[in-house]
Amino acid sequence: MVEIKPYNRYVESLSGRTFLDIARSIGIPIRAECGGIGICGKCKVIVEGRGELSPPTPNEIKILGDKGISQGYRLACQVKLLSGEFRVTIPPESVFQRYRSADIGYERSIPLEPAIRKIFISAPIPSLEDPKPDIDRILERIDSGLDNIEIPIDVIRKIPEVARVAKWNITIALWNNEKVIDVEPGDTSKRMYGIAIDIGTSKIVLHLVDLVSGETIAIESMPNPQISFGADIISRVTYALKDRENLVKLQNLVVQGINSLIDRVISRAGVQRENIYEAVVVGNTVMHHLFLGVEIRYLAIAPYVPISMRGLRLRARDIGLKINENGVVYTFPNIAGYVGGDAVADAIAVELNKCEEPCLLIDIGTNTEILLNTGREIYACSTPAGPAFEGATMRFGMRAASGAIDQVFIYFDNDSRDYIVRYNVIDNVKPIGICGSGYIDIVANLYRLDIIDRRGRFNRDIDSKRIVLDDEEGPRFIVAWSSETGIGRDIAVYGKDINELILAKAAIASGIEIILRRAGIDAEDLSKIFIAGSFGSYINIENAIAIGLIPKVDTNKIVFVGNTAISGAKLALKSIKIRREAEELTRKVKYIELSIDPLFRKIFTENLSLP
Amino acid sequence: MVEIKPYNRYVESLSGRTFLDIARSIGIPIRAECGGIGICGKCKVIVEGRGELSPPTPNEIKILGDKGISQGYRLACQVKLLSGEFRVTIPPESVFQRYRSADIGYERSIPLEPAIRKIFISAPIPSLEDPKPDIDRILERIDSGLDNIEIPIDVIRKIPEVARVAKWNITIALWNNEKVIDVEPGDTSKRMYGIAIDIGTSKIVLHLVDLVSGETIAIESMPNPQISFGADIISRVTYALKDRENLVKLQNLVVQGINSLIDRVISRAGVQRENIYEAVVVGNTVMHHLFLGVEIRYLAIAPYVPISMRGLRLRARDIGLKINENGVVYTFPNIAGYVGGDAVADAIAVELNKCEEPCLLIDIGTNTEILLNTGREIYACSTPAGPAFEGATMRFGMRAASGAIDQVFIYFDNDSRDYIVRYNVIDNVKPIGICGSGYIDIVANLYRLDIIDRRGRFNRDIDSKRIVLDDEEGPRFIVAWSSETGIGRDIAVYGKDINELILAKAAIASGIEIILRRAGIDAEDLSKIFIAGSFGSYINIENAIAIGLIPKVDTNKIVFVGNTAISGAKLALKSIKIRREAEELTRKVKYIELSIDPLFRKIFTENLSLP
Repeated sequence: MVEIKPYNRYVESLSGRTFLDIARSIGIPIRAECGGIGICGKCKVIVEGRGELSPPTPNEIKILGDKGISQGYRLACQVKLLSGEFRVTIPPESVFQRYRSADIGYERSIPLEPAIRKIFISAPIPSLEDPKPDIDRILERIDSGLDNIEIPIDVIRKIPEVARVAKWNITIALWNNEKVIDVEPGDTSKRMYGIAIDIGTSKIVLHLVDLVSGETIAIESMPNPQISFGADIISRVTYALKDRENLVKLQNLVVQGINSLIDRVISRAGVQRENIYEAVVVGNTVMHHLFLGVEIRYLAIAPYVPISMRGLRLRARDIGLKINENGVVYTFPNIAGYVGGDAVADAIAVELNKCEEPCLLIDIGTNTEILLNTGREIYACSTPAGPAFEGATMRFGMRAASGAIDQVFIYFDNDSRDYIVRYNVIDNVKPIGICGSGYIDIVANLYRLDIIDRRGRFNRDIDSKRIVLDDEEGPRFIVAWSSETGIGRDIAVYGKDINELILAKAAIASGIEIILRRAGIDAEDLSKIFIAGSFGSYINIENAIAIGLIPKVDTNKIVFVGNTAISGAKLALKSIKIRREAEELTRKVKYIELSIDPLFRKIFTENLSLP
Repeated sequence: MVEIKPYNRYVESLSGRTFLDIARSIGIPIRAECGGIGICGKCKVIVEGRGELSPPTPNEIKILGDKGISQGYRLACQVKLLSGEFRVTIPPESVFQRYRSADIGYERSIPLEPAIRKIFISAPIPSLEDPKPDIDRILERIDSGLDNIEIPIDVIRKIPEVARVAKWNITIALWNNEKVIDVEPGDTSKRMYGIAIDIGTSKIVLHLVDLVSGETIAIESMPNPQISFGADIISRVTYALKDRENLVKLQNLVVQGINSLIDRVISRAGVQRENIYEAVVVGNTVMHHLFLGVEIRYLAIAPYVPISMRGLRLRARDIGLKINENGVVYTFPNIAGYVGGDAVADAIAVELNKCEEPCLLIDIGTNTEILLNTGREIYACSTPAGPAFEGATMRFGMRAASGAIDQVFIYFDNDSRDYIVRYNVIDNVKPIGICGSGYIDIVANLYRLDIIDRRGRFNRDIDSKRIVLDDEEGPRFIVAWSSETGIGRDIAVYGKDINELILAKAAIASGIEIILRRAGIDAEDLSKIFIAGSFGSYINIENAIAIGLIPKVDTNKIVFVGNTAISGAKLALKSIKIRREAEELTRKVKYIELSIDPLFRKIFTENLSLP
C-alpha cells in the first residue's frame, strides 16, 4: 500500500513497479524530462514507511548523493516499491508542469503487446529416426497457425548453420505471426528492441525502447538534415517538386539522419543493431512522403491527397533504415492531406479517442492540427498558421533556442513614467531575438496596456521612449535596449510582426471555432484542451487566451502534453492494439477541409481582431 | 451435347471449352505433346454434327489443311464446341500413349484458383470534397479484409503517377489477398501469367501459363547449366560442399538458366515480363537447395535433413528471378531428404492423394522416389538406383538422345543359326549408344533366351558370333555391328553393364517391396501404378516386369504419366487449393528411411537375381 502526498491518493497493488509508473497509472504527473531513465533527476520524491524498496541505483546515488538518500529522497523512475506500507511525497518541483524538451511528451503505461515476438526453442537434434526438416522442426515448436508464414531468403539461408552451431537452442523473432524476422543462436529472447521516430520538419527525435520491459532506454534527436534544402516545409516541397531526384535526395537525407541517430542510441545503450526489429515512424504528411520517397505533387496541390490514410508496413531494408535486415517499418496512419500521423499519434498519446466528454487537441505549428472528440464523434481540421510562432517571419524572430526571449511581462512604472519590460532569456544569456511564446506575451501585454488596439495598431497618443512611431522602419515597441542585447542593437517588436502574429492566431482560432461549430460544441463545454507540440509547451496560457489563440476556458482544463507525437509512436511500438486504435481513429475521423468551408473566411476575418 | 467415340461417352455441358478440356475432364487421354497450344498436331479428332463450332484457328489450317478441315478434322486443343449436338471421334493415333517429350506430362483440368488476382477498378477522381488518400481510395474498391495488406515500397511510389495518368482506371495485382504485387494503368486484368518450373538434375523445363484461361501458352526447356560442374547430382553436391562460393555459383547458374527460359517464353508468347506474377518451382531436394542457395551439407550427409518440408514463398527479386519485381516464387513442399518437391508434384498431378484403392507412384531416376497410397495412408521412400538407367555407368550407355538405341528385340534365327537383333534408334540415325530403356529390353531378352542366367552371368555354352566371352574386355553381347553404327565400332552390352542394371533394378524393386510390406499391401492389390519421369515414358513395360523392375501386375494397371513434376507445378500455379493439397500430402506422408530399415539389405540381396 502506498499513500501519495500531497494528493491524498492511495494505491493498493505495488506489484514491483517503479513509483513513476504507479503515479502515472493514477494520473499524477511527475516530471521525467529524460523519459524515466534516471538521468535528469527531475522526479525526486521522498519515500517514508516500512517495507522493501529496491536498492538505490547508481544513477540515484550520483544524483541524490548519500545524504539525499539518507533523508529519504529517491528518484521516482528508479525506485520500486516491492512490499510494505509507504508514504511518498512528491515535492512541488517534481510535479510535471511543462515539457521543457521537444524530445519527449506525456507518457502513459500500457500493457506490452508488441508486433514482435521472440521465442526461444530447444529442439531435438535431427537423426535418421527423426529427420524432420529444419524449418518444420523450428516452427512446430512455436505454435500453430503459422502455416502461411513468410521467411525471407536470407533467414532461410542462415537457419542450417545457426541451428547446428547452437545445438538447436535458438531464438526466433516473429513479426505479427506473419513473418520470421530472424533466427538467432541461443536464448536471445530478452534482447528485443524497437525504435520510435518522430520526423519533425525541424527536428528528428528517436527513442530506443526495450520491448521486453517496455522501458525507453535511450533518446536522441537532431535537426532534420533536410533543413539545408529549406528551413520551412514549403521550401522543401518546392525543392522536391522541381525534380524527382530532389525528392530522392531529401529521402536519403532523412534516412541517413535517422541512421545516425540509430548509431547513437545503440552505442549509448549497448544494444545490437540486429536486435532492433521494428521502427514506428510518425511525421506530418509531407515528412511522411519524403521519408517514403513518395511523390508529393498531389499532396502539395489541391485537392491535397496523401498517398495513404492507413498505416503502412515496409521492409526496413527497402527504406534503407539500418536496423535488423528484415526489420519492419510501420508508418503511422494519416487523417488527411494536412492532418498527418503526428496528429494521430498526439491523439492516441492523450487518449483523445476515448474521451467521453468533449475534448480538444491542438498541435500548434506552421500547420496547426486540431482534433475534437465530442464524446461521440471525432473531427479534425488543419489550419495554416504559418511560421509566425516559430519566429520565422518576424523582424527579430527566432526559434525557442539559446538567446531567445521566451517570456515577457510589461508594466507601466510610475516612477520613471515609462514602461518597464521584464523578460526571460533561454539559457540566461544576453537576448538575441524573440521566440513565439515571447511574441504572444508581448502582444498580450501591449493590448492590455492599450499600446495597441484590437487590430494591433499602435496607439499614437502614448509618449514612451520604448515606442517609436515615425521613421521609415515603421512603428515598433522596444523590448530590450541595445545595451542589454547580445546583438548590439535594440530588440523590438514591429507593427508588421504584430500583424503576422494576429494572422497566425486568427488562423488557429478560426480552425477551433469552425471545428466546434461543425460538431455543435461550445468552448465552455470542453472538459480538456490538450496542447501538443514543442512550441506549445512554452507559451503562457493566460496570454494565449488574452490574444484569442486559445478559447477562453478555465485554465486548469488546459494541459500541455509536449511532444506526444513521439509518445504515440512509442505506444504503437509497444502495442499492436494501440496501432489498431490509431487506424480505427483515422477511419472514424470526420475531416473538415477549411479551405472549402463557406464559414471560414467570415470567421477568419472576425478573428483578425484581438478579443 | 457431345458423344465421344469410340468411348461411347456423353458430355452434356459444352460451356465453350475446347474439346481437349472436355475429354480430359472425363478422363479420356488425348495426346497433346505441345501441351495443348495447337502446334504439335497430335490431337486430331473428327467432329460431326449440327451446331456452332469455333472457326478453325490459323494453327488448325496450317496443320490440317483445308482438305482435312473439310473432312471434319479439327485439333482437339483448338476447337471449341459452342452449342448444338456433336459426335467427336478420337482416332487411335490421337490417343495418348506415352509422353515422348520430357517437357510435359499427364495433365488434368481443374477449376482455376490462382494465388494471384487482378482486379480492375475505376475510382472517382479525388476532389476537395472527396480527398481520400490514394491507397485507401484503391483498396476500398477491392474488398474488405485487406486491412493488413502489404504494399511494397516501389508499388507505393508508383501509385500516384499510375493512378493519375490512367485517370483512376487501374488494375491491381494481389497475391493471396496478402500483398499488392503491382498497380497498372488501365484494365490489364486479362494479362495475368505465371510460370511453372521443373528443375531437373539434367534438364530445366518451364511452362508459361495464362492464369486467366488456364492455358499453357509456351514451353521451353534447356539442359541444367549446372551440368558444367558435374553431370550427376553427387558431383554437384561435392562441388557445392567444397566452398560456400561454389554453392552461390551453382545457384546463379540455375537462376540465370531459368531467366533465359523466361526470356524465350515471353518473346515467343508476346507476354510482358511484368505480367508474370508468380513462379512455382519443383525439383528434387538438392535442386531445391541449390536453387535457393541454401547450404546442402546437412542434406548431403546423414541424417539427410533438408531445409524445409513446407512450401516456401519468396520474393522473385530476392531470388533473382526476372519476373514482376514483386512477384512471388513458391517452392514445392518436400517430403524428406531424398523425396523432394518433384515427387510431391508427381503425386498431385496423378491425384495419388485421392486414390481410394491402393496405388503406387514410381519416379524412376538416379534417385527413385516411390509413393504409395493404400487408400487410407500414404507412404514414401527413396532408393538410390544410381545412374544406370541414364546410361551413365554403362560401356555404351547414353541418355535417351539422338542416336541412342532405345528399343531392342532379340530372337534366334533358325536360318542363320544365330541371334538377330532388331532395334530402334532415336531420330532414326546410325546408333551411337544405348539408353536405359534399351538396356532393359536387352537384359530381358538375353534372360528370356537363356543367354544370361538369373544372376546376369553369361551362359558359356552358347555359340554365337554376337557373344564374346574370352578376351580382356570381359564377356559381352554385340547389339549392333560396327558396320551399322555411327561410331565405327560394335555396340555391345557387357557383363559389367548387366550387373549395373541388376543393381539398379534391385534398388528400385527393393524399395517397392519394402513400401508395400510396411503398408501391408500385396502387389496384386494395386489398382494403378503410375510411372513418372522422362525416363519411365520410354520403357517397355513387359520387359521391365520381366527383369523385376516393376511388380508383376496386369499391364493395363500401369500408366506412364511423363513429366508430372511440371504438371503438378502447373496445377499448384493454377490453384492455391492444389497447393494446400500438396502441403497436406507432405504432412500426411509416412516416410520410410530405407537406409535404416532392417529388412532392406535382405530384400536387396534377394533382388540381385532376375525373377
